Amino acid sequence: MGLDEAAQKPHDRLNAWLAADMAAVDEMIAARMVSQHAPRIPQITAHLVGAGGKRLRPLLTIAAARLCGYEGPYHIHLAATVEFIHTATLLHDDVIDESTQRRGRPTANLLWDNKSSVLVGDYLFARSFQLMTETGSMRVMQILSNASATISEGEVLQLTAAQDLATTEAIYLQVVRGKTAALFSAATEVGGVIAGANDAQVQALFTYGDALGIAFQIADDLLDYGGSAAQIGKNVGDDFRERKLTLPVIKAIAAADAEERAFWDRTIAKGQQAEGDLEQALAIMARHGAMEAARADALAWSAKAKAAIAELPEHPIRGMLSDLADYVVARIS
Amino acid sequence: MGLDEAAQKPHDRLNAWLAADMAAVDEMIAARMVSQHAPRIPQITAHLVGAGGKRLRPLLTIAAARLCGYEGPYHIHLAATVEFIHTATLLHDDVIDESTQRRGRPTANLLWDNKSSVLVGDYLFARSFQLMTETGSMRVMQILSNASATISEGEVLQLTAAQDLATTEAIYLQVVRGKTAALFSAATEVGGVIAGANDAQVQALFTYGDALGIAFQIADDLLDYGGSAAQIGKNVGDDFRERKLTLPVIKAIAAADAEERAFWDRTIAKGQQAEGDLEQALAIMARHGAMEAARADALAWSAKAKAAIAELPEHPIRGMLSDLADYVVARIS
Repeated sequence: MGLDEAAQKPHDRLNAWLAADMAAVDEMIAARMVSQHAPRIPQITAHLVGAGGKRLRPLLTIAAARLCGYEGPYHIHLAATVEFIHTATLLHDDVIDESTQRRGRPTANLLWDNKSSVLVGDYLFARSFQLMTETGSMRVMQILSNASATISEGEVLQLTAAQDLATTEAIYLQVVRGKTAALFSAATEVGGVIAGANDAQVQALFTYGDALGIAFQIADDLLDYGGSAAQIGKNVGDDFRERKLTLPVIKAIAAADAEERAFWDRTIAKGQQAEGDLEQALAIMARHGAMEAARADALAWSAKAKAAIAELPEHPIRGMLSDLADYVVARIS
Repeated sequence: MGLDEAAQKPHDRLNAWLAADMAAVDEMIAARMVSQHAPRIPQITAHLVGAGGKRLRPLLTIAAARLCGYEGPYHIHLAATVEFIHTATLLHDDVIDESTQRRGRPTANLLWDNKSSVLVGDYLFARSFQLMTETGSMRVMQILSNASATISEGEVLQLTAAQDLATTEAIYLQVVRGKTAALFSAATEVGGVIAGANDAQVQALFTYGDALGIAFQIADDLLDYGGSAAQIGKNVGDDFRERKLTLPVIKAIAAADAEERAFWDRTIAKGQQAEGDLEQALAIMARHGAMEAARADALAWSAKAKAAIAELPEHPIRGMLSDLADYVVARIS
C-alpha cells in the first residue's frame, strides 16, 4: 500500500475499488425511483438521493458480494434495495423529528409536506421489495424484511424510551440496532448470501455489519458530547438539549448518586434545562468515567467487527473493510 | 338458497362459509402484530385491528384460494399479509388526512401521535413482507410488492391531483386503483396463485378484484353526493367541502360551460365555498347527467367483475363473490 492509498479514507478506497459497481447502483436507483403516474415521487427522491450522502450501505453490500467472489448481476439490485430502505427511513425520520435540514439541504417535509414524505417513503419501501424479489432469493427477502421490522421496532422503542431514565444499555443497544446496525448487518449479510458464501462466512458478514453499525453509532453519540461542530455536522450537546438518552448518559445515570439523579431527572426526564447544565452534565459524566466507558464499548465493537471480517477469505476488500472498522472509531480514539 | 340466506349480505355469507379460516386469520394477525421490544406497537395495532372493520380484503384472499381448491396453510399467511398492508395504509392515511375518527373510534394519531402512527405503519409493512416470505412463493411476493407500490403511487397522485380541475377520468382511475382496487386485486390474485390455479383463472381473479374495487369506490364517491349519513358513515357533501375531485365532479367539469367552470374553479380549485354551493354543485351535476354517468360506470365495473368470476369453476363461493359484486353497487342502484 502506497502512502497516498494509506492516507485515503477506507470508505473512499472501497468506493474507488468498486467504482464500476457503484456507478451501476446509481443507475439502478435513478431508473427505479421513477413513477409512471406520480411525478412528485422522483422529484422528492432525487432531492434526497441527489444530495449525496455516503452511500455506505450499498457499498457494504457490493463489498461483501465481491469479497465472496460474486460475479452475477444481483448485488446491484440488493445495493439499490438497501439504499431505498435507507432513504425511506430518512424521509419518515424527518417527518417524525420535524427536521428542517438533511445533508445540508432543506428536508423534503419542509420543501413539500409531511404527507409527501410519508407516502414517498412508503413508495420507496415498496420499490425496495420489488427490487429484492427480482433476485429470486427467498433468503435475501427474509433477511431484508426482518431488518425492516427491526428498524421500525427500534424507532418505536426510541420514541417510548426517550426521556425515560430507566432506559438500560440493553434498550439502547436495541434502539441502535434499529437506527443503524440492522441495515448495516443486512447489507453485508445479503451480499454474502447472493454470492453463495457458506454459513460461517455469512454469519461473519452479519456480525461485521452489526458490530460496525453499533461502533459507528456509539462514536456518533460520544462525539455529540465532545467533537467539534465540523466533525459531527451539528453542535456539541444537541442530544442533551433534545433530551436523548445516549450511552454515556445512560452509564452516568446508572452510577448516579441522589443529587446527580435529580439533575438528570430535571434536565432529561422533565426537560427543564438552564444555562450551564450541559457543562454540569459533562462534569458528572467525567466524574463517573462515562465517556471513557462508552469509548471502550465502541472500541470493543470495532474489534469485534474486525475479528469477524478476518474470518473471510484474504482479499483487498477484506483489508479495506477492516480499516473501515478502525475508521469509524478513529474519530473518538 | 332459502329466504334467510338470500336476505343476508354476501359478505356475511362468505364470512360464515369461511368462518374457520377467518378465525385462523384473526389468530395469525394477533400473533404477528406483537413486538418483542416495543410494546406500543401491539397497543396501536390492537386499537385499530380490534375496532373491527369488515376484514374484506383477507376474506377475498381466503375466498379466492378456497374457490380454487386450495388445501394448504398459506392462504392464512396471505390473508394476514393483506390485512397488515391495509392497516399500515390506514395508519399512514390518518396521519396524512389529519383524521380524528376511524371506524367510530379516535384515530391512533390522535390517541398517541403522528410519529407512532408513521412508525407502526412501517412496522406492519415490514411484518407483512415477513409473512409473505413464509409462503415461499416468489410470484406472491411480486404481486404484493407491486400492489404496495401502486398503492403509494396512487396516494401521491391523489395528493398532487387534488383540487386540480385538469384531473381526468384516467387519473381518477389510477388514484382509485391506488386507494382501493390494487389491494383488492392483489388479494384475490394471490389466493389463486397460492392455490396453483391456471393462468386464465389467476387473471380472472385479478380482474374480479380490480373491477370490484373500482365499482366499490365509485359507489362510495357517488354516495357522498346522495346517500344518507347512516349509509355512508359521514355527511353528504364531505368530498365537496374537502375539495376532492371524484368521478361525478370530473364528469361535470368536463362538460362545463364558462360559468360552471368558474363555479368549480372557485369552489374546488380555490376552495372559496359559501352557503348554497353544495346545492348548486348538485344542480350542475344533474344538468349534465354526471351522477347518472358515474353510476353507469360503477354498474359496468360490477358487471365486469361478475363476468370475470364466472370464468372460475362452479362453487358456492363463486356465487357469493358474484353477489358481492352486485352488493357493492346495490347502494346506488
